[in-house]
Amino acid sequence: MRLSTQTIQDHNTQLDARHQAALKRCREALDEIGVDAEVLISKIEALSIAIPSWAMGAGGTRFGRFSIGGEPASLEQKLYDVAIINDLTASAKSVSLHIPWDIPRDLQQSKSLAADLGLTFDAINSNSFQDQKDQGHSYRHGSLSSNVKAAQRQAIDHNIEVINLGEALGSKALTVWLADGSNFPGQVDLRAALSRTRDALQEIYAAMPADWTLLVEYKAYEPNFYSTVIADWGTSVYLAESCGDRAHTLVDLGHHLPNTNIEQIVATLMMRGRLGGFHFNDSKYGDDDLTCGSVKPYQLFLIFNELVQGMLDDPSSEPAWMIDASHNIKDPLEDLIQSLDAILLAYAKALCINRSILAEARTNNDVVHCQEIIQSAFLMDLRPILQEARVRAGAAISPIQLYRSAKIREQLIKERGHMTQATGL
Amino acid sequence: MRLSTQTIQDHNTQLDARHQAALKRCREALDEIGVDAEVLISKIEALSIAIPSWAMGAGGTRFGRFSIGGEPASLEQKLYDVAIINDLTASAKSVSLHIPWDIPRDLQQSKSLAADLGLTFDAINSNSFQDQKDQGHSYRHGSLSSNVKAAQRQAIDHNIEVINLGEALGSKALTVWLADGSNFPGQVDLRAALSRTRDALQEIYAAMPADWTLLVEYKAYEPNFYSTVIADWGTSVYLAESCGDRAHTLVDLGHHLPNTNIEQIVATLMMRGRLGGFHFNDSKYGDDDLTCGSVKPYQLFLIFNELVQGMLDDPSSEPAWMIDASHNIKDPLEDLIQSLDAILLAYAKALCINRSILAEARTNNDVVHCQEIIQSAFLMDLRPILQEARVRAGAAISPIQLYRSAKIREQLIKERGHMTQATGL
Amino acid sequence: MRLSTQTIQDHNTQLDARHQAALKRCREALDEIGVDAEVLISKIEALSIAIPSWAMGAGGTRFGRFSIGGEPASLEQKLYDVAIINDLTASAKSVSLHIPWDIPRDLQQSKSLAADLGLTFDAINSNSFQDQKDQGHSYRHGSLSSNVKAAQRQAIDHNIEVINLGEALGSKALTVWLADGSNFPGQVDLRAALSRTRDALQEIYAAMPADWTLLVEYKAYEPNFYSTVIADWGTSVYLAESCGDRAHTLVDLGHHLPNTNIEQIVATLMMRGRLGGFHFNDSKYGDDDLTCGSVKPYQLFLIFNELVQGMLDDPSSEPAWMIDASHNIKDPLEDLIQSLDAILLAYAKALCINRSILAEARTNNDVVHCQEIIQSAFLMDLRPILQEARVRAGAAISPIQLYRSAKIREQLIKERGHMTQATGL
Amino acid sequence: MRLSTQTIQDHNTQLDARHQAALKRCREALDEIGVDAEVLISKIEALSIAIPSWAMGAGGTRFGRFSIGGEPASLEQKLYDVAIINDLTASAKSVSLHIPWDIPRDLQQSKSLAADLGLTFDAINSNSFQDQKDQGHSYRHGSLSSNVKAAQRQAIDHNIEVINLGEALGSKALTVWLADGSNFPGQVDLRAALSRTRDALQEIYAAMPADWTLLVEYKAYEPNFYSTVIADWGTSVYLAESCGDRAHTLVDLGHHLPNTNIEQIVATLMMRGRLGGFHFNDSKYGDDDLTCGSVKPYQLFLIFNELVQGMLDDPSSEPAWMIDASHNIKDPLEDLIQSLDAILLAYAKALCINRSILAEARTNNDVVHCQEIIQSAFLMDLRPILQEARVRAGAAISPIQLYRSAKIREQLIKERGHMTQATGL
Repeated sequence: MRLSTQTIQDHNTQLDARHQAALKRCREALDEIGVDAEVLISKIEALSIAIPSWAMGAGGTRFGRFSIGGEPASLEQKLYDVAIINDLTASAKSVSLHIPWDIPRDLQQSKSLAADLGLTFDAINSNSFQDQKDQGHSYRHGSLSSNVKAAQRQAIDHNIEVINLGEALGSKALTVWLADGSNFPGQVDLRAALSRTRDALQEIYAAMPADWTLLVEYKAYEPNFYSTVIADWGTSVYLAESCGDRAHTLVDLGHHLPNTNIEQIVATLMMRGRLGGFHFNDSKYGDDDLTCGSVKPYQLFLIFNELVQGMLDDPSSEPAWMIDASHNIKDPLEDLIQSLDAILLAYAKALCINRSILAEARTNNDVVHCQEIIQSAFLMDLRPILQEARVRAGAAISPIQLYRSAKIREQLIKERGHMTQATGL
Repeated sequence: MRLSTQTIQDHNTQLDARHQAALKRCREALDEIGVDAEVLISKIEALSIAIPSWAMGAGGTRFGRFSIGGEPASLEQKLYDVAIINDLTASAKSVSLHIPWDIPRDLQQSKSLAADLGLTFDAINSNSFQDQKDQGHSYRHGSLSSNVKAAQRQAIDHNIEVINLGEALGSKALTVWLADGSNFPGQVDLRAALSRTRDALQEIYAAMPADWTLLVEYKAYEPNFYSTVIADWGTSVYLAESCGDRAHTLVDLGHHLPNTNIEQIVATLMMRGRLGGFHFNDSKYGDDDLTCGSVKPYQLFLIFNELVQGMLDDPSSEPAWMIDASHNIKDPLEDLIQSLDAILLAYAKALCINRSILAEARTNNDVVHCQEIIQSAFLMDLRPILQEARVRAGAAISPIQLYRSAKIREQLIKERGHMTQATGL
Repeated sequence: MRLSTQTIQDHNTQLDARHQAALKRCREALDEIGVDAEVLISKIEALSIAIPSWAMGAGGTRFGRFSIGGEPASLEQKLYDVAIINDLTASAKSVSLHIPWDIPRDLQQSKSLAADLGLTFDAINSNSFQDQKDQGHSYRHGSLSSNVKAAQRQAIDHNIEVINLGEALGSKALTVWLADGSNFPGQVDLRAALSRTRDALQEIYAAMPADWTLLVEYKAYEPNFYSTVIADWGTSVYLAESCGDRAHTLVDLGHHLPNTNIEQIVATLMMRGRLGGFHFNDSKYGDDDLTCGSVKPYQLFLIFNELVQGMLDDPSSEPAWMIDASHNIKDPLEDLIQSLDAILLAYAKALCINRSILAEARTNNDVVHCQEIIQSAFLMDLRPILQEARVRAGAAISPIQLYRSAKIREQLIKERGHMTQATGL
Repeated sequence: MRLSTQTIQDHNTQLDARHQAALKRCREALDEIGVDAEVLISKIEALSIAIPSWAMGAGGTRFGRFSIGGEPASLEQKLYDVAIINDLTASAKSVSLHIPWDIPRDLQQSKSLAADLGLTFDAINSNSFQDQKDQGHSYRHGSLSSNVKAAQRQAIDHNIEVINLGEALGSKALTVWLADGSNFPGQVDLRAALSRTRDALQEIYAAMPADWTLLVEYKAYEPNFYSTVIADWGTSVYLAESCGDRAHTLVDLGHHLPNTNIEQIVATLMMRGRLGGFHFNDSKYGDDDLTCGSVKPYQLFLIFNELVQGMLDDPSSEPAWMIDASHNIKDPLEDLIQSLDAILLAYAKALCINRSILAEARTNNDVVHCQEIIQSAFLMDLRPILQEARVRAGAAISPIQLYRSAKIREQLIKERGHMTQATGL
């Protein structure tokens, strides 16, 4: 199903007066601090975050999964779901596939459907953390790091197939997340496992087209609970450097030890030219995969503070943006809309930081003033800017409100049934 | 399948010379520190740890599960698996069922099978964290804490059924672990959720036979990632006190925030007469459910130091002992044997602490000496004591070695096939 | 030194136009969501946070301390510092003394100076975590928990003296923070230490006037690094209950293990009628004692969400409010002003949560909506409300700006010199 | 004061029978697992750990410090203290100075005293985290990372002076630990601070003699509580690589985020040829600086497992070993002896791991067996081996026992008085 342009316009018309008043107030507030609202709006319009194909279904934990009806059962249906989100928000113009969950039955058809829906294919993800039915060799003891030659070979070949598939679809990057590691002290030769991973990544890197990027994700723990081969950014950068200039680190916000200063990692990676991409989500304890900005909105803002600064310094350094959340008790589409909103809001606020005054306060080591500058941007209410950016792009002032009033989930259930289950976690 | 007494005896005969030599050395070392090896051996013989019915199958994470062949597909097969462990170790004389995973098809048959196998039924576990097929009301938004009256009712009734089942089998305790909580700030009224949980537990408590105990488990997080209704021991004790004298706290080692001093919680619970039971496992990050003693053996010893002290002061305070681990990459039966070994070793070492000298060193605030006393017990090599305790009880000197040489897993696979999957996580 | 009313008025006049415009926008935004700006302003005006006497000097860490000039060297000077903060903000109307750091040289003089400055004496703090010169017995091995009778006696007597002093000054509460604990496994008998602490607190409680409250603070760790006697809220409540109805728990935001859900603890304490007071600060790693709201402003808001709800349900449950931060690299007075601002802002936002709609969304388990409701309050820019509340109370629109333009620190340095060092940490 | 050879011999004679019996049992147990006791003893004899000059005094926290009498007040006295430890243990043959705390009054005298005492000078430590009296520029806002040119210059110059001093004393390495960082989001330009640090380290590196090594320490947090410039091993390796081949990473066990897998970091650093040195201590919460092995002895063993493996693979990779603990409530000399014991025990156990069988089990991905192999080494009681190594080297069978019976602390107090305070933390 699609939302008609008319439906969206009707919604916007209805909310227009209220929106205009709020926008006017927001413009005045921005004027006060010397920020050009138009520039802000256009930058917000320009940002698009990729939606992972696996995020359209209800997620779960090892303790269970509570289905929501109308989940997409095929790649085609997933593309339609992303299109709905993009119609409502105008900030989700691409999809990030996960192979083998999303192998297209018909490549050309998928490609043209995506084009029709106004979507492109972002970084493509391989999967060597689960065994698939009738898989030749198990990943029980690892994939790229495995000391079982045949299993490692299979994992390398799988990644190369994913590259080929991605190339056919127009992707320009491969994201590799390895679950490889160990559960018990002594279980693996830690150095040998890292060496094998490096060698395997080099082979995958060599198989990429010349305009592709390799994104090496790291994660502190889970599903392995003693060691993880690519446990931190330092290891990821080492592997990226071992591969070549087009290998970069991918940061997933939930993949860190308690209390990690993630924004500092982002700054360091940008300084070293190795920040390749982002998986946005939020968490309180571990890789909780909660809605972006739902638990630590200030941290999200501080990360964007670094990103904005880094992109100002080097515009070519913009990373690949992606959401990677899991929706255990929310309607996944609503959840994704909330995530997009939180990301855009953090970005907008980071754009409002007065960087020349901040630079001066830092030069003077005026710590109190630095905090005031940073926080005064965070405290701005910029929701009207996001609304206006959506209006201009033909999207909805209040996406969730429209999603509900247009009874989209109900229609999806009618179309697809109550019992479908999307592939993914 | 069962191990014949002869098989075990042959194994022991083969290892006897080596065992006797080691035991002799161990006795001498114990003599040196004034510990009576015979008392130690008999205390080790007397300790039995319940095996949870769900631990005989391969566990997994939300990212996947790697099956092992020959997993038990029925309660009957699970009982046989526990019997194998008990035959090998003589320290697993009971089983802890999980309902509805283990509803007996025939109560009397299960009961007499258990008796034939030399097993009893320990605390029984309810499950209101997953929806079962054809369940009337979903636990998506909680169970005992739910504001959906019908769902809460269903959860209470389920617990009462579990009690009835347990009574028929000879259990004397109900373990309640609630996943109830929330994923997002604001999602629930925290106080109301706690009140509803208290009221529901009181109703369950009232339904218990007069000689039963209610064990209230707590967990800091997971599967809910913002708040958990029974998040810590303080909340568990509050609920237990709200129920009555036969309600106690159950401690699962993996259910704490980073860096928690668990042994102090154990001490406090014993002091307040509210330590009801234990779920043993080990972990590095969260509720990793690893083999006991595989990551933090010293912590396990320190916990037993408190337990031994507490049981000395009040022999009636012995809690219910249970393993609760998940076996993602090990043969579950081997893993359980390793866990039993680690628990018994920690217990044996804690029994070697010279408590009168320790008391004196504490009185003098001789911190250096206190540490020496504690650590000198931990540094003893007491494996021969465990072996001797097993020999005397007719079990194996080296259980895993015998498990492997007797090709038990291979036989289970032959009997049950490669593709079975045990119920559980 | 004092700020003259004229100075403040001049400052406000200068910023008036800008303030009025911002206030107008804010009123409109509040109108949109149905919040009465006047009610909000008056509630903000009514909130006052106690300033701890030790916070007016530069703090430090074990690695060093970087002095700032003009630190108050006497209780009198500390009172003047609080008066400056209160003149600027109108929200710091009381001071919380720490004995023996702040023993008045002349009780009556201190009392009348405070009255002249418009200040009262809030909860008074004892100190049994440091040895004072010529102290009879060392607290090296603990104070209230000590097994050295004379040291425990001394600590009890000290607390009783503090009560007497506080009574003379008009305080109505005693705050007890114990550093007592141990650094090494085995060092202390954990249960005996808790028992001795309970007995000592009961004696202190009995010595309090009938209208006094005992506030029992807890802390997970530091300065002891293995165990702390009062390590968590559960232990604090146990001790409070052991004393009587006027003993309550005091929550310091920095005194928790990583990832603790503090707002849930607040909710539980309010439900049980045991929330006595707050020490506000912020932190990323441990008891970092940073400026309130500087690292986790959303957490602060969520805590106020619970507080507002609790005080709505039971207006008598308002706790004692205090800042407890340490100012290593900021001017302490500026830091305290930033902390007050962050606290009031969190409070104001929490007051904007539409509680009837939230209750309805919770009843419907509409998780997405609950989040929207909570966050839409947090996203409001309510700084103009705080400014207006200050204006009405005769304080400054922009306290830090005025503090700087009036060159207050420079004057303090001139008055007191560069080399003074305030007592405290 | 010194211990006479006769005193030690008398002590050993007294304990000899007991020691010989224990050693005999230990030899037999080692024979059983195919380990040559003689090789083990000689390896233990060969290991020496440097004692930091600041560790001979009572440490403290920001909340206070409890003095112990007889603390060394000069470098000379510190050398005597190390000599006592070395006389007792034969495993502390060098001292690691900290400048400016330990600037020798007379270089030649210090050098010849050390030689007389049988001691050498290990890595020397600079200090740019505290302001010294009459220091030209404050480190309030950083040292090597400072944007205050003069402060940065001063810190570089200080390090060069430390190198010169170290060269005169015979040191071969400089250890740089930077406290530099920030307390509040926004306070510093994270990338600029890292760049400045890199540039400054390069200058220091260039000033080192050709046979010197630069050890770059990292620390996750404290004393800065938002960001630390060199926060993790990844940053440290980046800086080391930016300097040259003789720059390495120094690992302090207490400088990590919660749950960090330190042994994996050690393995990675060894694989990359960048492990330069170790600061041993133990901790439960943060940089607690507790006695080595007092809280997590198994972690210490696992670290030595990696070290032994790494040194087997490349004997030139042996890092600089040092203790860095703080002794708040123990006699520092006793504490250091306990630390040495724990380190040597971990090393001895790691040497007992059967590496060929482990390699085979790993090849087979026999996880259960891997754990058995690792743990069976850890479970050995190897205290007699340490005793025998000491006896052969002329040191004491039971160092703490002799330390006490010889009344060394009492004599130090007599010589130096009750009120001395060693320089340091």
